[in-house]
Amino acid sequence: MPTLKPVKWLACFLSVALLGCSELTTHTPAEPTVKNVILIIGDGMGPQQVGLLLSYARQAPHSIIANHRTALDRLLDQGQLGISLTYPDNALVTDSAASATQLATGKFAGSEMLGLDKDGNPQINIIEQAKRLGKATGLVSDTRITHATPAAFAAHQTHRSQENDIAEDLLAVEPDVMLSGGFSNWIPEQATHKQEPVHQQLEQLIEHSFPVKSERKDNKNLLYTAQQKNYTLAFNTAQLQHARGKTLGLFAGSGMADGIAENQNKNAPKRTEPTLKEMSEKALEILDHNPKGFFLMIESGQIDWACHRNDTGLLLHEMLRFNDTLNAVLDWVKNRNDTLVIVTADHETGGFGFSYSNANLPVGRKLPGKAFAGGTLFKPHYNFGAPAILDKLYAQQRSYHNIFAEFDALPTAQKTPRALAELVNRYTLFTITETEATTILKTQVNPNDQPDKPASAKAIPVMPVNDAFYMSNMEKRENLLGQAVSSKQSTVWATGTHTSTPVYVFTLGPKYLAEQFRKILHHTELGQLAINALQCSGSNAACPSTHHTTNVVE
Amino acid sequence: MPTLKPVKWLACFLSVALLGCSELTTHTPAEPTVKNVILIIGDGMGPQQVGLLLSYARQAPHSIIANHRTALDRLLDQGQLGISLTYPDNALVTDSAASATQLATGKFAGSEMLGLDKDGNPQINIIEQAKRLGKATGLVSDTRITHATPAAFAAHQTHRSQENDIAEDLLAVEPDVMLSGGFSNWIPEQATHKQEPVHQQLEQLIEHSFPVKSERKDNKNLLYTAQQKNYTLAFNTAQLQHARGKTLGLFAGSGMADGIAENQNKNAPKRTEPTLKEMSEKALEILDHNPKGFFLMIESGQIDWACHRNDTGLLLHEMLRFNDTLNAVLDWVKNRNDTLVIVTADHETGGFGFSYSNANLPVGRKLPGKAFAGGTLFKPHYNFGAPAILDKLYAQQRSYHNIFAEFDALPTAQKTPRALAELVNRYTLFTITETEATTILKTQVNPNDQPDKPASAKAIPVMPVNDAFYMSNMEKRENLLGQAVSSKQSTVWATGTHTSTPVYVFTLGPKYLAEQFRKILHHTELGQLAINALQCSGSNAACPSTHHTTNVVE
Repeated sequence: MPTLKPVKWLACFLSVALLGCSELTTHTPAEPTVKNVILIIGDGMGPQQVGLLLSYARQAPHSIIANHRTALDRLLDQGQLGISLTYPDNALVTDSAASATQLATGKFAGSEMLGLDKDGNPQINIIEQAKRLGKATGLVSDTRITHATPAAFAAHQTHRSQENDIAEDLLAVEPDVMLSGGFSNWIPEQATHKQEPVHQQLEQLIEHSFPVKSERKDNKNLLYTAQQKNYTLAFNTAQLQHARGKTLGLFAGSGMADGIAENQNKNAPKRTEPTLKEMSEKALEILDHNPKGFFLMIESGQIDWACHRNDTGLLLHEMLRFNDTLNAVLDWVKNRNDTLVIVTADHETGGFGFSYSNANLPVGRKLPGKAFAGGTLFKPHYNFGAPAILDKLYAQQRSYHNIFAEFDALPTAQKTPRALAELVNRYTLFTITETEATTILKTQVNPNDQPDKPASAKAIPVMPVNDAFYMSNMEKRENLLGQAVSSKQSTVWATGTHTSTPVYVFTLGPKYLAEQFRKILHHTELGQLAINALQCSGSNAACPSTHHTTNVVE
Repeated sequence: MPTLKPVKWLACFLSVALLGCSELTTHTPAEPTVKNVILIIGDGMGPQQVGLLLSYARQAPHSIIANHRTALDRLLDQGQLGISLTYPDNALVTDSAASATQLATGKFAGSEMLGLDKDGNPQINIIEQAKRLGKATGLVSDTRITHATPAAFAAHQTHRSQENDIAEDLLAVEPDVMLSGGFSNWIPEQATHKQEPVHQQLEQLIEHSFPVKSERKDNKNLLYTAQQKNYTLAFNTAQLQHARGKTLGLFAGSGMADGIAENQNKNAPKRTEPTLKEMSEKALEILDHNPKGFFLMIESGQIDWACHRNDTGLLLHEMLRFNDTLNAVLDWVKNRNDTLVIVTADHETGGFGFSYSNANLPVGRKLPGKAFAGGTLFKPHYNFGAPAILDKLYAQQRSYHNIFAEFDALPTAQKTPRALAELVNRYTLFTITETEATTILKTQVNPNDQPDKPASAKAIPVMPVNDAFYMSNMEKRENLLGQAVSSKQSTVWATGTHTSTPVYVFTLGPKYLAEQFRKILHHTELGQLAINALQCSGSNAACPSTHHTTNVVE
């Protein structure tokens, strides 16, 4: 319909003018447009985390990354780089819910909100926008589908913790593809009880892929609703493989396997959970059937979890999972000119870094160079960290979380510092002593445990500094383990929560489009640019002139 | 000489092919070239430090930055962004000497070396390359001219600590402009003694701008040598203003004023020290007289010093000093097409971040939005940091270093925790209690103080965790002060040393040239690209075909 075109381009022009995006004003209709937008979010993936992946790729003596080149190097061969600030309304640091809301809606959000603006008004998100354009939509995450990041792309809730309501929101918005963990928020409360028929029915449905346990406080069976809405359901790799069309895949009761476990099980014949890469590939396969194109959000969500726990070995594996996934997406877009790929993060977590210390100082050694001919030894004053540390991090066999789970499962009498040291030293190459284990296991009275308001834990671990930045009493032991191996790993962590560090924005697609992101953005602007890219492009999609008036969900 | 051209372009082509820089192979002689390269290094300026500047510019209620736009925003209007890894040979983390050497030579260096490759062989640096091409050269820093970063652009020494030898190297290489601190390394040892005639002569020469004290172990007067080499000498703002031609400006005995002091004295009529911005402007004025162009390195060097000390208020002022300086450079290059500007860092320092905590939790409040209509209060679970913190950081009146200098100058009996708290609370808005001051002043026996090898300090401050990452016993008190105000400032610091975080590379200049830096580089590649830009460009400069064979200093 050629008569639509002037309207379409006028609208594009106006929306861009409102954004102050001067570069696009030089964009003429002759330039290629895209019909698909793929947004990949590394949760907690600041420049620090990207740095670990790059250090590993370039410097690890036995790096598994071919030619030392990461997927990000590959993306930048043709792509663009920008920076984005992630802060929410009226605060310096963001949580994942507000950050993803800002990406999904292009509007400032309050902390911990989902799909609302700073005043608490529901805002239309990019999935709802895409659906209005007749496009397919999808959400993929290795956490839970109701967790903050994927939730912000479909739900509208006052608080991210309302995961049961979020599941209902997801079903109401109906993305074509939802693949993640979080089964427990979709099944009736009574399903937890083994004697209930629904328990056994669900066990059969999911082919015993994982335990059936509900987190709901009502007896709604959202899986039933999903079937009524024509979703194919999948609960393990085989079922996912056979899925066609609209698909809801829930592969774990809560969060999916961590990066170390995913890597170890990759070739296990009985593996039930798909990898993040496999879920992403499947989502692309399904969504690509829509001739009008699609929007897909993929979250590499456990980067954040590893960083909250200051677990460097796990972080490396999470970054490798992200790298594998991005490589698969780049393979998919190769030789296509109809897709914009955006890679970013919602915030940084942990304040990670390799750092130099005065522990284990290097011994002096001779160097062959002229400047050292007089016999001067090469003897740096500090320990700048051996590249072999990267291989040792890769060799970690269990996440700190799973090490402590194994420890906690021991009979009470066996929960000794020695037992903890043995577990740590069995599964990691950065060993700890019994004395160090004692420090990690030391507890103090929980100040929040009051007679009128008893806390779940009577005794909590002791953080020697900055206790206010470590939120989870259970995780503090993992943070303390991180501190215990710090000088051996040449690693430091600043916090158990998020930091304000600006995040990268990598974009790949038609140059005029990708270049719009080559500046210092805020996540609200990034979100608006992504929404615009979807709206103003694609041969079958009209760019609605109503874009800037109908952004409130009625 | 048109006959030279084919040789020139063949050489460019070859050098680029060796670098694997495929983008430049599409560059034809018809494209504009540059004759000047300006390299601006924020020492310790990782994405975290840039983030503080951006948070301040965008979010501070009383931001002094016009229109919330930093010089980096301005640069990216037309410029390009890349990432660079900074690690030296065989280590994960770099010091400033190795990092700047890699930038200056394009070769991997060993830790703490200057102008040498990893084997200890002297390598030609970009200043030496520029001089071969008949270009002018300059070094500007707000630290000392013999400090690691500027030193690496001229000197060749086995260790960065050899600052007296570095001063001699600087004079041997003869950059046209050297403006910084570090006077003490240029004057004879005897000048320290007030009764020596040379002491009074020097006091007159420098017009009593700062105390005369030598760090040399010999009686060489390098200022005399400099005069013989036709350097104009300048020791204060007035002398700098009148300087013409080759200029050596030394404006402080050791390091120059810190960012807070510079800011407070900006309009003082008796100010003797020029600002980093003024030095940069003067350098550009002088260097621009060479028709063949120039290479200029400007270091905003005290970003690193603020971060080693975990002094967030000072860091903000250092970032503002950097911003002022970059703005001046951008003003200078405006409407020019003969200059490539590169802005980067040598590494990150401190692992800085704003971070969220559970201290001072927000109270619930009503929101007008629909989603909160039912009476739900907006009450985030954590304290995400108030933007007003940024103004309070800006209001800091003394650096932590100067607060402790004032404390140490008190009579012994008055050096009490109460006195420290009073000083901190006088000069900063993040107050501490007497109890907190007691923790900061607590000492333990120095384990390095041995009968056979006595240490300078018998008692040293107590770092509760990660002691191995805090190198300076004197600075530990400042690090502890940083920890004491951590939850009030919503700031965290990971270390007292550097981290491995990749740094930004901002480039502005002809697009084909600036775009070469839009990838994930290593600092050796960045250095090579900068050297190539100088060699292969400028209407009066020949691109020597010998580039890849004569890179060893004879």
